Amino acid sequence: MAMIKTPVKGMPEQLPSDMEIREYALRLIKETYGNFGFSLIETPVIEHIENLTNKQGGENESLIFKILKRGEKLKEADNGEELCDSGLRYDLTVPLSRFYVNNMNILPYPFKALQIGSSFRADKPQKGRFRQFTQCDIDIIGDGSNLAEIELISATAEMLHRLGMGNFKIRVNDRRILKAMVAACGFDSGKYDDICIVLDKMDKIGVDGVEELLRKMELNKDGISKYCKMLADGTEYDMCGGFVGKHVKDSIDSAIADNMDTILSCVRAIVEGRGEVVFDPSLVRGMGYYTGPIFEIELIDKKNYSFSIAGGGRYDEMIGKFSDGKIAAPACGFSIGFERIVTILKDRGFKIERGGESIAYLLKPGLNTERVREVIVEVNKLRDEGKRVLISPRAKNIKAQIEKLEEYGYTRIVKIDN
Amino acid sequence: MAMIKTPVKGMPEQLPSDMEIREYALRLIKETYGNFGFSLIETPVIEHIENLTNKQGGENESLIFKILKRGEKLKEADNGEELCDSGLRYDLTVPLSRFYVNNMNILPYPFKALQIGSSFRADKPQKGRFRQFTQCDIDIIGDGSNLAEIELISATAEMLHRLGMGNFKIRVNDRRILKAMVAACGFDSGKYDDICIVLDKMDKIGVDGVEELLRKMELNKDGISKYCKMLADGTEYDMCGGFVGKHVKDSIDSAIADNMDTILSCVRAIVEGRGEVVFDPSLVRGMGYYTGPIFEIELIDKKNYSFSIAGGGRYDEMIGKFSDGKIAAPACGFSIGFERIVTILKDRGFKIERGGESIAYLLKPGLNTERVREVIVEVNKLRDEGKRVLISPRAKNIKAQIEKLEEYGYTRIVKIDN
Repeated sequence: MAMIKTPVKGMPEQLPSDMEIREYALRLIKETYGNFGFSLIETPVIEHIENLTNKQGGENESLIFKILKRGEKLKEADNGEELCDSGLRYDLTVPLSRFYVNNMNILPYPFKALQIGSSFRADKPQKGRFRQFTQCDIDIIGDGSNLAEIELISATAEMLHRLGMGNFKIRVNDRRILKAMVAACGFDSGKYDDICIVLDKMDKIGVDGVEELLRKMELNKDGISKYCKMLADGTEYDMCGGFVGKHVKDSIDSAIADNMDTILSCVRAIVEGRGEVVFDPSLVRGMGYYTGPIFEIELIDKKNYSFSIAGGGRYDEMIGKFSDGKIAAPACGFSIGFERIVTILKDRGFKIERGGESIAYLLKPGLNTERVREVIVEVNKLRDEGKRVLISPRAKNIKAQIEKLEEYGYTRIVKIDN
Repeated sequence: MAMIKTPVKGMPEQLPSDMEIREYALRLIKETYGNFGFSLIETPVIEHIENLTNKQGGENESLIFKILKRGEKLKEADNGEELCDSGLRYDLTVPLSRFYVNNMNILPYPFKALQIGSSFRADKPQKGRFRQFTQCDIDIIGDGSNLAEIELISATAEMLHRLGMGNFKIRVNDRRILKAMVAACGFDSGKYDDICIVLDKMDKIGVDGVEELLRKMELNKDGISKYCKMLADGTEYDMCGGFVGKHVKDSIDSAIADNMDTILSCVRAIVEGRGEVVFDPSLVRGMGYYTGPIFEIELIDKKNYSFSIAGGGRYDEMIGKFSDGKIAAPACGFSIGFERIVTILKDRGFKIERGGESIAYLLKPGLNTERVREVIVEVNKLRDEGKRVLISPRAKNIKAQIEKLEEYGYTRIVKIDN
């Protein structure tokens, strides 16, 4: 059987130059979130199939890489469903919730977690989008107050600033406001999910496009115009209270708007001069598990990067699902688009500055043992001094070899001929 | 469907205290190998099933987590074999070889790679042994000389030294010497693999145990006593040449012993005072892909750690298998038992020293927006100064909360009550 040299469809490979940028970004991310008191943890990439298919993950649940049962269990399996007992995680939030419930007795409360790891989605591969990708999530479990949202957003804004991402726009909304909007328009609450799917497209199709799609659903006409008026009016309000007071006052608890306004006010104080923070009632976010505030960050650079660079929200009910409702820990998280950050750094020609000297020793083939040993000892002394020293046999095409070494940052070439 | 709170069988979870040690070790590993001129790369964890089941991986091929086909392809699949088109890698060597052939035009020659990533084996889980584990490999592709072996072993010895692993023993052998031993005893070369499986157990069962097992195979009796005499005599020789000259001279090219002796001599010069380097004709190593020198490092601490901490060897034929034999690049690699290193650091009570001040702000619930904003701004000033500052609502059990925070390294607690 021949071996296949290309990666499996949609799988990424990171070259040395890619890795330098990734490592730089990872170091900075760990340092920044560390300063904010987040603790690094790791969860396995393989998760129970039951946990991955429990309607928490929205459309990602249809994109799971499933893992075949092994041994006796496989022999017993007799239909497609039961062939698999596990799968690769599609995000880091489901595994974190499981991890928290499993380890809560030894973790602090509230617990501030930082996770960096691979997630997997059998999505249609696109340029720069892979089926295995690094996710970087921060989560606060056990803080039901808006301090959690404020900290998550502030920390991420600081991280983006330190990475030199430029000015950004932070959009915030609340799933309960989305529900109130549906109620205020007299729509059946059973239509809420479908309406959100339409609303999620507003970025691309505008309010008119949303209106057109809503008309195709069985909704009352007055409701549709009311709904679209709200959307058109949406980002006009400096504070959420203004929007809620005008449009959905009778369908919502006013504490929800107050909560949002505290978030807006505090986050604005932190990111002042680096970006804007807006209340946006058209923000949806896809994951099924969100229950309260949701938020997203995009760069103010629509020409080049018309995508969000981080997104998250509150998911107060997920921990309960892992404990049959026995443990009710509020939770809130922010997922940073690590791959997108790396893409932007690359596009902008970001270069790593290497400290210290880099030397390459090129040895003529066939030197005797004594001479090789001498050189090896010499080279290791230089390494002990902290220098980067490479030692290789001289290639036939030495010119090409040296050019490549220079590209890799070697500034001094030492040829050993005898 | 209920969600399951324990990890999938054999899957590891890393707590914050685990991660501190892991991150420390990773930083040091990257730094040391970086000094030796190794470049970090990453390959995907999902690999073609064809590449994973091509008799390169020895018994690991029976431990593969296989991934179910998706969509149309799954519908077409009609038997167990064809249900899967990919699997999780069992090591980093097969993916590296594929990566090299796929990217060779843009990589240096020779190419020195450092990989750190997860591998997966559906092995019987044991204490401290998981089915997902971090591997850390260095490889040199394109260097057919023993400079590759010397560099790999020297770099790893240096890394173990910097990690404070204590004195170690490096054992080296050559697959071709193992073959010559079989030939010199008059055994059928078809029995080579089976004999190696027996020999691989010598660590546990001794020469007598090996003799007993060989007697159960259809081998000539004189050959068996000759073979066991070689083994008993094995580590008596300072240099490989002595052993080869006495026992297998007529079954092997003398250049193979010379090659080994250069490796022994150079590596001894480097690791002097930190460990011993021995030629050991009973060293086997399991992977099917090795073709020449093989090596293993164990700590000189048999009481606590009777396992190898790193192992590797030359696999000159694998690259060719990914290119239908069109590309013949020699290759040599060393895989470091990262999980074992972490276990040892933990066992020894290794503690990370945290620099700088760590402060925890505990806020009384229900403070008004202005006050929260004020505190947030104050806290962020401290963070800008490089301090680690955590901000959390005060828990009901504040005593337990503070104790946990102190355990996490917070030395100053600031209570905000109004």
